[in-house]
Amino acid sequence: MRTIKPEPALTLADHKAAILRDNRRVTSYDVALVAGVSQSAVSRCFKPGASVSKATYARVMKAAAGLDYIPNAAARSLITRRSNMVAVIISNLANLYYPEALSELSREVGRRGKRVLLFTLQEESELEAVLNDVWQYQVDGVIAAATLSDGQVAEFGRRRLPLVVFNRNPRGQAANTVACDQYEAGRALAARLAAAGHRLFGIIDGEQDNTVASERRRGACEQLAELGLPAPVIVRGAFDYASGKLGLREIIARGNGSIPDAILCGSDMMTIGCLDCARHELGISVPEQLSVAGFDAVEPSNWLSYNLTTLRQPIQQMAAAAAELLQNLMECSEGAAEKRMFAPQFIEGATARLTPPASIELAA
Amino acid sequence: MRTIKPEPALTLADHKAAILRDNRRVTSYDVALVAGVSQSAVSRCFKPGASVSKATYARVMKAAAGLDYIPNAAARSLITRRSNMVAVIISNLANLYYPEALSELSREVGRRGKRVLLFTLQEESELEAVLNDVWQYQVDGVIAAATLSDGQVAEFGRRRLPLVVFNRNPRGQAANTVACDQYEAGRALAARLAAAGHRLFGIIDGEQDNTVASERRRGACEQLAELGLPAPVIVRGAFDYASGKLGLREIIARGNGSIPDAILCGSDMMTIGCLDCARHELGISVPEQLSVAGFDAVEPSNWLSYNLTTLRQPIQQMAAAAAELLQNLMECSEGAAEKRMFAPQFIEGATARLTPPASIELAA
Repeated sequence: MRTIKPEPALTLADHKAAILRDNRRVTSYDVALVAGVSQSAVSRCFKPGASVSKATYARVMKAAAGLDYIPNAAARSLITRRSNMVAVIISNLANLYYPEALSELSREVGRRGKRVLLFTLQEESELEAVLNDVWQYQVDGVIAAATLSDGQVAEFGRRRLPLVVFNRNPRGQAANTVACDQYEAGRALAARLAAAGHRLFGIIDGEQDNTVASERRRGACEQLAELGLPAPVIVRGAFDYASGKLGLREIIARGNGSIPDAILCGSDMMTIGCLDCARHELGISVPEQLSVAGFDAVEPSNWLSYNLTTLRQPIQQMAAAAAELLQNLMECSEGAAEKRMFAPQFIEGATARLTPPASIELAA
Repeated sequence: MRTIKPEPALTLADHKAAILRDNRRVTSYDVALVAGVSQSAVSRCFKPGASVSKATYARVMKAAAGLDYIPNAAARSLITRRSNMVAVIISNLANLYYPEALSELSREVGRRGKRVLLFTLQEESELEAVLNDVWQYQVDGVIAAATLSDGQVAEFGRRRLPLVVFNRNPRGQAANTVACDQYEAGRALAARLAAAGHRLFGIIDGEQDNTVASERRRGACEQLAELGLPAPVIVRGAFDYASGKLGLREIIARGNGSIPDAILCGSDMMTIGCLDCARHELGISVPEQLSVAGFDAVEPSNWLSYNLTTLRQPIQQMAAAAAELLQNLMECSEGAAEKRMFAPQFIEGATARLTPPASIELAA
């Protein structure tokens, strides 16, 4: 007569080794096997409100922890109400400022264990449609590098969806915000160039619905008016290289062929276009005959062919601040809206004359 | 005696108007009210396998359709097994090729009703860790602009997760792929410059783990060897502007101060750095003393200060092909791996001499 030995129970260690050997993902069936319960019991343990005994629940949780079991993300997000996704709404990536911002935002959001769900806008007018799409995804929060209406900001509140507005700061809007003071940046750049003796200004502005460029333009215009200088010639652009070239030609045409002393561009991409057109198409020497300056300090602004006079936005610091602010909002959504404002940094570069010409110095 | 009139039933139209007036989202409670059933009955209708009568199911579905009811996305994704998210794995966005590719991919994926969940790599060696993170999200498919190992490709198969490899094509790997033939591109560029009489070449290669640049380099080297020209001096770079500057200096140092006839750069960002260093730091005139050419045709390659001789990858066509191929795989995952290869387009530009110098023409 042979003694029949019972099959030894499957230990946690054995089972983990088997999963590792098969190079596969831990499933609810593995948890069931180790806990000695049915798969449906495991499933019930991870479903809120489902009926399960305390003893079963304890065994399942112990086995799940031991196996590093992660329930299917969608199932988990129903339970925790966390998807570990942050929606980033960002304008057309062709303006080089945005890829740099997106890269930093992705890194900072990633550091906090979350991933970016990307919503790109071809133009700001698409925002309403994009928001309707955002609501369909269960994101934990939203970073919007776009100008929202007060009604859109309120809609986030109604949905209790944390929102950080990035690189935009519409006057009087009570939203959590990380931005630079573009109005002050515009004032500062105009003041600096006026102090160097420039009197006739042109401005290549951004698109009508873009508050970043319009704040910069408003700051520059008010500063020039306060200094008693003539109102600048203002033309519109679309933030791209071609707009800078066209803008310069239009400003000269509006002045009946005369070249202003300085041109301020709403973005560095336009500054580069303006500069290339001046030097390579119109034969205007910069900065001797014309000063050209911009905003953003995107990477090419620093290349030897350009070396722009510009104002740098601290993108890295701003991205870190946005991710941190959003994290705080996700943990506690109460309290007043917070605005984190950064000062842009002046880059002297070599495309604008920054000291008064000798004749003015003598006259002073 | 007063007659008590029954409250009129809430019509679909009334209810829709009320929701619109309150500017709120349609919930399962609204559906329940219109269908005349309990909320839990609605909930059961949207849960696979839950018990519900056919009559109730029909009433709920009719009310849900009438109200444009969308169940919570996470709940819905449990039902449909579709999250409407596509993971895009992409290298550091600092190389300008990638923002352009990402922008196009986001647009093409968006056209198909899905959104991009972004996974950025600082370097390719992070890929394994990033994939472990990708598995945690219930994405419908993955577009990977990174070099995967055969084991990693196989893991997608095991998980039945559709994968399209973008802009990489490791030899012999059976993965669905959209790419340019970088080897042929390298051969073509070397052949074109050799035909114009260049004999001494330098190459600024990419990083060791990057197959795009290594295929370009391999093609160029094999072409030059077949033509009986000397082996080029090869130095490594990191695809960025600084690498182009350093690379040029290193090639000249390795030649004991002599300048080669032509330098081929693994990316246009490096070509621009090389060109700026030649012109602005070393006083070498391009293309008179040195021809410089690259790959990618990123936007700045076209700026007046550069006007690069380069090979354009048709990013827009490639992004559309990748999104389409992925969509097909999501609908039917069977069948052999498909490779969609595009030919790069030669851009003459002005940084390389493309006709033989007079002396060579006489000798021929």
